[in-house]
Amino acid sequence: MNIEDFVRKDIHNLEPYKPITSNWDIKLDANESPYDVPDQIKEEIWAEVKKNMFARYYDPTSEKLREALAAYTGAEKEQIIVGNGADEMISTLLLAFGGPGREVIIPTPTFPVYKTFAVISGARPVEIPLKKPKGMDEIWEPDYEGIKARFSKTDPQILVICYPNNPTGNYFSDDKVIELIEGFNGIVVIDEAYYEFGGRSFVPLINKYKNLAVIRTFSKAFCLAGLRIGYMVANEDIIEEIYKVKLPYNVSLFSQIAGQVMLKYTHFMEEVKENIIRNREYLYNALKSIGGLTPYPSEGNFILVRFSKGRDEVYNGLRGKRISIRKLEGEALKDCLRISVGSREDMDRMILEMKRILEGIE
Amino acid sequence: MNIEDFVRKDIHNLEPYKPITSNWDIKLDANESPYDVPDQIKEEIWAEVKKNMFARYYDPTSEKLREALAAYTGAEKEQIIVGNGADEMISTLLLAFGGPGREVIIPTPTFPVYKTFAVISGARPVEIPLKKPKGMDEIWEPDYEGIKARFSKTDPQILVICYPNNPTGNYFSDDKVIELIEGFNGIVVIDEAYYEFGGRSFVPLINKYKNLAVIRTFSKAFCLAGLRIGYMVANEDIIEEIYKVKLPYNVSLFSQIAGQVMLKYTHFMEEVKENIIRNREYLYNALKSIGGLTPYPSEGNFILVRFSKGRDEVYNGLRGKRISIRKLEGEALKDCLRISVGSREDMDRMILEMKRILEGIE
Repeated sequence: MNIEDFVRKDIHNLEPYKPITSNWDIKLDANESPYDVPDQIKEEIWAEVKKNMFARYYDPTSEKLREALAAYTGAEKEQIIVGNGADEMISTLLLAFGGPGREVIIPTPTFPVYKTFAVISGARPVEIPLKKPKGMDEIWEPDYEGIKARFSKTDPQILVICYPNNPTGNYFSDDKVIELIEGFNGIVVIDEAYYEFGGRSFVPLINKYKNLAVIRTFSKAFCLAGLRIGYMVANEDIIEEIYKVKLPYNVSLFSQIAGQVMLKYTHFMEEVKENIIRNREYLYNALKSIGGLTPYPSEGNFILVRFSKGRDEVYNGLRGKRISIRKLEGEALKDCLRISVGSREDMDRMILEMKRILEGIE
Repeated sequence: MNIEDFVRKDIHNLEPYKPITSNWDIKLDANESPYDVPDQIKEEIWAEVKKNMFARYYDPTSEKLREALAAYTGAEKEQIIVGNGADEMISTLLLAFGGPGREVIIPTPTFPVYKTFAVISGARPVEIPLKKPKGMDEIWEPDYEGIKARFSKTDPQILVICYPNNPTGNYFSDDKVIELIEGFNGIVVIDEAYYEFGGRSFVPLINKYKNLAVIRTFSKAFCLAGLRIGYMVANEDIIEEIYKVKLPYNVSLFSQIAGQVMLKYTHFMEEVKENIIRNREYLYNALKSIGGLTPYPSEGNFILVRFSKGRDEVYNGLRGKRISIRKLEGEALKDCLRISVGSREDMDRMILEMKRILEGIE
């Protein structure tokens, strides 16, 4: 008996997500914050958590966290649903509105899990390549006409926009994205995982566009990647459908309370954000001063870099020095690496080693 | 624009899972442990958790927890995968091995999420009714011949067995279940959520039967319902496929560590288990002494009760007294209620009120 005979063929062809978790000295590969939650806030979370019975199921609708998020986002709490990371929000949206026989349109390169979750839902991912910038003053723009040409009038589809786009770092044109939303026969998902670092958002438009769903996370500016909290903001009709497909008790007691407490301390998040933005500028300028590579401007907490030569040497050389940055899949990024914005110290060390490696090639 | 035009029809027809979370005085409706994790263990979890950066993604493969689970279950750590509650394990298994066009065979009445997750995966749930016991000395047995008659020789299927079965409380015959496994063209899932209270398990058979997947949880005897930790034990080929469909970072830092620490204190779980078994016996005898109802013997932490009259009066009457027990859907259970095994005090109060309500009807 072979398991291959039983598993869905499209699932069997997926790669399992099992990252190599070596002990890096410097880790700039997962767009994490280098700043941790202060001990005082951690202790406040714990003081609240330990009052609760661990043995009881906790709130399946994360109501208190949704109330805090309503204040933070400006949406109504009924327009918000909380998930086990932004991942669960993307996954559930694709399950409810994608699924067998439907198309999920994805401008790529972008965050690869959209495609994976589309396949898992039974939908067909349709990747429309971004236009690769020719010069340093250009950015990665979607092929808007190519996307529109794919629009179906009859069958519902899903369109996923990462805003700002991971890994290219830029926002797409608001006007053009709105044009897409207005002409689309299905849900448009805007993934705003990096919202806090760029400040632009489609949340104010959820009342105007009933087919718009915005996804956000506590994993980046709120420094809670380890605790798995994401949320979706959309009109209530969409939210109701997501409740039907999410895991009933999807977010743990600890994570719900951690999210609530963090929203009491938005000044901590603001500080992190400002530090990251400052460090991003610093990293961008440091990279620009190195010959043979092009850093793209970024509105996230990472910078995409294109190498005119030595991409793999840099990647492997840094790993040899116990420094991890991100190599990405796909033809469009075959000469690129993505570097997360870290602490000054970590970035200085990485830049130093990168220069040495590149000098060794010349 | 109507969201109904975009959502999958089969999803739209599902009921959203939004339990009414009133403030009950006595809650015997969700098979939770009435005993909480002791403060000393809670503090040990916290001491370990706070050493970690909340800002970093935590182990996507829950390796240390799998090591502890290997010791607990007797399986290899490569034969174990950890999820966001047993729910995520059921959901991912159905996504990977069910999905569009396939059948999921479910002996019912049972835990209703199997059917829900089957629909979400795109599969077709096929419910085969258990034989309803006629007398007090009978138990709820599957219609083994009816199940076999549904077996396909050509198309892979999934068979889900809840063992012991929620809500009926009994184990099905091991020999008969093994016959089903041997003759089945697909994965047989054994949900052992209540394993600790009954002590029987299919885990020792995972090496013999490559199409067998056993699901367990920390939500019952380990008293961690609020923290969402479940796991699957199966041969490595099945586990590899689940890694492809699970959320990449599915289990939070806090939950992974909580699970690890709880497995250091299995004597606490053993104590809980013994108390629950003793209380189950107490509840069973107390119910048997009441006229007009039949409690079914149970190997879980709950008892199913059939009322010869007044089922709804009891259910509503108890709610009026701020006592919540579980009313279940479906024709087979239209005269039944399920009561979780709680503390002596809570059960005494519930029994007292139940007697009063039944006397009021006569």
